[in-house]
Amino acid sequence: MITQHHHVVIVGGGFGGLYAARALADKPGIRVTLIDKRNFHLFQPLLYQVATGGLSPDDIAYPLRAVMRHYRNANVLNAEVTDILPETQEIVTSSGSLSFDTLIVATGVSHFYFGHDEWEQYAPGLKTLEDALEMRRRIFQAFEEAEKATSQDERKAWTTFVVVGGGPTGVELAGAIGELTQNTLKGEFRRVDPSMTQILLVEGADRVLPPYPADLSAAAAADLYRLGVTVRTGTLVSNIDADLVTLKSGEDTEQIRARTVLWAAGMRASSLGRIIHERTGAPLDRAGRVIVESDLSVAGHSNIFVIGDLANYQHQNGKPLPGVAQVAMQQGEYLGELISLRIHGGNKSSFYYNDKGNLAVIGRNAAVADIGRLHINGYIAWVIWLFVHIAYLIGFERKLQVMIQWSWSYLTRRHNSRLIVGGLQAASNPTLNGRTDERLMIEPTLRER
Amino acid sequence: MITQHHHVVIVGGGFGGLYAARALADKPGIRVTLIDKRNFHLFQPLLYQVATGGLSPDDIAYPLRAVMRHYRNANVLNAEVTDILPETQEIVTSSGSLSFDTLIVATGVSHFYFGHDEWEQYAPGLKTLEDALEMRRRIFQAFEEAEKATSQDERKAWTTFVVVGGGPTGVELAGAIGELTQNTLKGEFRRVDPSMTQILLVEGADRVLPPYPADLSAAAAADLYRLGVTVRTGTLVSNIDADLVTLKSGEDTEQIRARTVLWAAGMRASSLGRIIHERTGAPLDRAGRVIVESDLSVAGHSNIFVIGDLANYQHQNGKPLPGVAQVAMQQGEYLGELISLRIHGGNKSSFYYNDKGNLAVIGRNAAVADIGRLHINGYIAWVIWLFVHIAYLIGFERKLQVMIQWSWSYLTRRHNSRLIVGGLQAASNPTLNGRTDERLMIEPTLRER
Repeated sequence: MITQHHHVVIVGGGFGGLYAARALADKPGIRVTLIDKRNFHLFQPLLYQVATGGLSPDDIAYPLRAVMRHYRNANVLNAEVTDILPETQEIVTSSGSLSFDTLIVATGVSHFYFGHDEWEQYAPGLKTLEDALEMRRRIFQAFEEAEKATSQDERKAWTTFVVVGGGPTGVELAGAIGELTQNTLKGEFRRVDPSMTQILLVEGADRVLPPYPADLSAAAAADLYRLGVTVRTGTLVSNIDADLVTLKSGEDTEQIRARTVLWAAGMRASSLGRIIHERTGAPLDRAGRVIVESDLSVAGHSNIFVIGDLANYQHQNGKPLPGVAQVAMQQGEYLGELISLRIHGGNKSSFYYNDKGNLAVIGRNAAVADIGRLHINGYIAWVIWLFVHIAYLIGFERKLQVMIQWSWSYLTRRHNSRLIVGGLQAASNPTLNGRTDERLMIEPTLRER
Repeated sequence: MITQHHHVVIVGGGFGGLYAARALADKPGIRVTLIDKRNFHLFQPLLYQVATGGLSPDDIAYPLRAVMRHYRNANVLNAEVTDILPETQEIVTSSGSLSFDTLIVATGVSHFYFGHDEWEQYAPGLKTLEDALEMRRRIFQAFEEAEKATSQDERKAWTTFVVVGGGPTGVELAGAIGELTQNTLKGEFRRVDPSMTQILLVEGADRVLPPYPADLSAAAAADLYRLGVTVRTGTLVSNIDADLVTLKSGEDTEQIRARTVLWAAGMRASSLGRIIHERTGAPLDRAGRVIVESDLSVAGHSNIFVIGDLANYQHQNGKPLPGVAQVAMQQGEYLGELISLRIHGGNKSSFYYNDKGNLAVIGRNAAVADIGRLHINGYIAWVIWLFVHIAYLIGFERKLQVMIQWSWSYLTRRHNSRLIVGGLQAASNPTLNGRTDERLMIEPTLRER
């Protein structure tokens, strides 16, 4: 019997939390509070486009309040959750505590530098909008610095990019930088030739896109090569500093002088994973993700659930489901039905992930798509990728705008969203140059005083 | 006789510098170096749209290299100019020094707090993209905080906005915030009613838009009133701190509890003005602007020019020309012809500003336009405003995109570009709250621990 609304508190407005909120908020007898420390939902698959100037931050993020505006039983709270108290059924936030009847935690993951946190300042990752803007700043600043450089060595260091990690993120990032250097920036500089840029993609496994079928990995590698990207498989990064990257391949060590290193390898669970473990005893895996039951709940707590990248779900095939948007969305929708059913005395079978296929895009009109038995690559795959992404945006009212922005960008073959916001002083930041008082050596037209 | 290209160095990529660069760069015998510490040209008249979430930063800024790409004799240099040496015909930049045959300085103005620089942390201005993003953050964060507030006083302080300065910038800003609170944010909050927001526009003169004809000032005031803006003319700000604004009107003093104060009053010349004065003896006015000759040159230096907001040109009617985009553009184009003519032995008469009219928009479909003898207000003025702005963008390839973005925004009556970038911690910044360890008091549903 329900005497008052069942209060579902959802922590995290990413794919998992948002889809759960939308599924629950119009079910009878339920009210939802969606909590996020940001005021928007981020469409992470397109972050690499912001990082390379193809899209604007506002194109891939949607204010949570606007998404939830029509759900009268839904509340959006802009706060950070710092603790979970299962005994009293409360969470603690930066704005006070909140009671729940059911709790869903979907706070995802962030970068992991394999114990080398000191690399972070030299090699930004790509998880948040700020990350993407920082990457963008460094990429475009590198060409500005190359243009002003006065020695061949300096110019080469500024036009050498290293992308660490050959999964979908790294591949898409490297391909997009390749597009910039081969097409977009052509003709814009007078001293540096962007098409002579060296882009290295470093991957520890024996091929890029390790989760994909081997033929698609090969197709991706070929597309990358055409865009000027050199792929180094079976290679790990052993050190990164301000202008030097050390690579290790078997017994061999190689040092690359590169001013711009971008991190697309290694993820670690949000800190709420550890808090859940401490408060409930739920087991964590090595990446800190919460190992969940077959209904996505935390062991021994039937009203606390973990979904999305933060969850480790092994009940389908013995291995954890991948940390992709599809999984999070389906888990959110599953809980939407499960929780509602249970309130009314019903139940649902275990969560089952229906893998509709995977896509990775490399450059303007090349992509690889792995859909059931179909392995597609090339232009067709890119078109599929385009429409799938737009379809995901249904209900967010962004699809027309993104379609227009992308079409515009595609037609003009130019990346308009490349502003270096933050000012020139950022380029003198010690983490980029290594020394604050360094002055570039100068050509005959620019003389040092 | 020209034995080699005449090198024109232009400092500043705003309206003045960019229009001068484009006018000069395809003239025979001339090569141009355009220097800016940012890598983009900013369309400042629309900054208030970014500040209120109507447009994205990338919508109103265009990479300088892209604008200049087709001018083979033009170089873009991303650097900051720190000194000017007329005797040796050099400028000093953050990347070394550079020789010039002709120098054009067009570095504009920035905010001025009338000697109260301590107000800047409480009341951001609107001159750069970072300014606009900071304003945007504060505006939207204010509603998030109001939603969480647990006392009536706190909620009222968060939903009270003070805009200082009743010129075009302040009027457009206040009107746009009014649009947000009356239309866009309706229905998105559960505790706070955005339409109950109090917006104060404070102006020292006896009417808003003092440079405009009196009937248009009255029309603007009426439009503002309809958008929930309270106009206080004949009123000055005597103090601003984290949550209190003190107003002075004649003998009366009033204190307003407001968490969000936005500065649109008071401008001061860029520091290069002072450097020009020290190096050439050219006179400055009280705002630090360089008083120029009738050909826009610096007294005694026929090959050094100052244009745009940094210049004080009095030769047309005894009063300095206004610091508006039109003036800067026409001055840039004038120099394009003048310098080219003089190199080939010719000359040109004094600069003459052809005032084609002035526009200020208030809200979605109300504006005032002062064109020759025509005083237009209302919807027609807004349409004119729209097309004039788009026409200004001709050649920047932005017009279609902006038109689409604006049309989309207008049709959906929703401001999509309101992301609070930078994270929640920014809201706990001492300059916003006053104290770092402050916790908001909380309602029954959120209990303090």
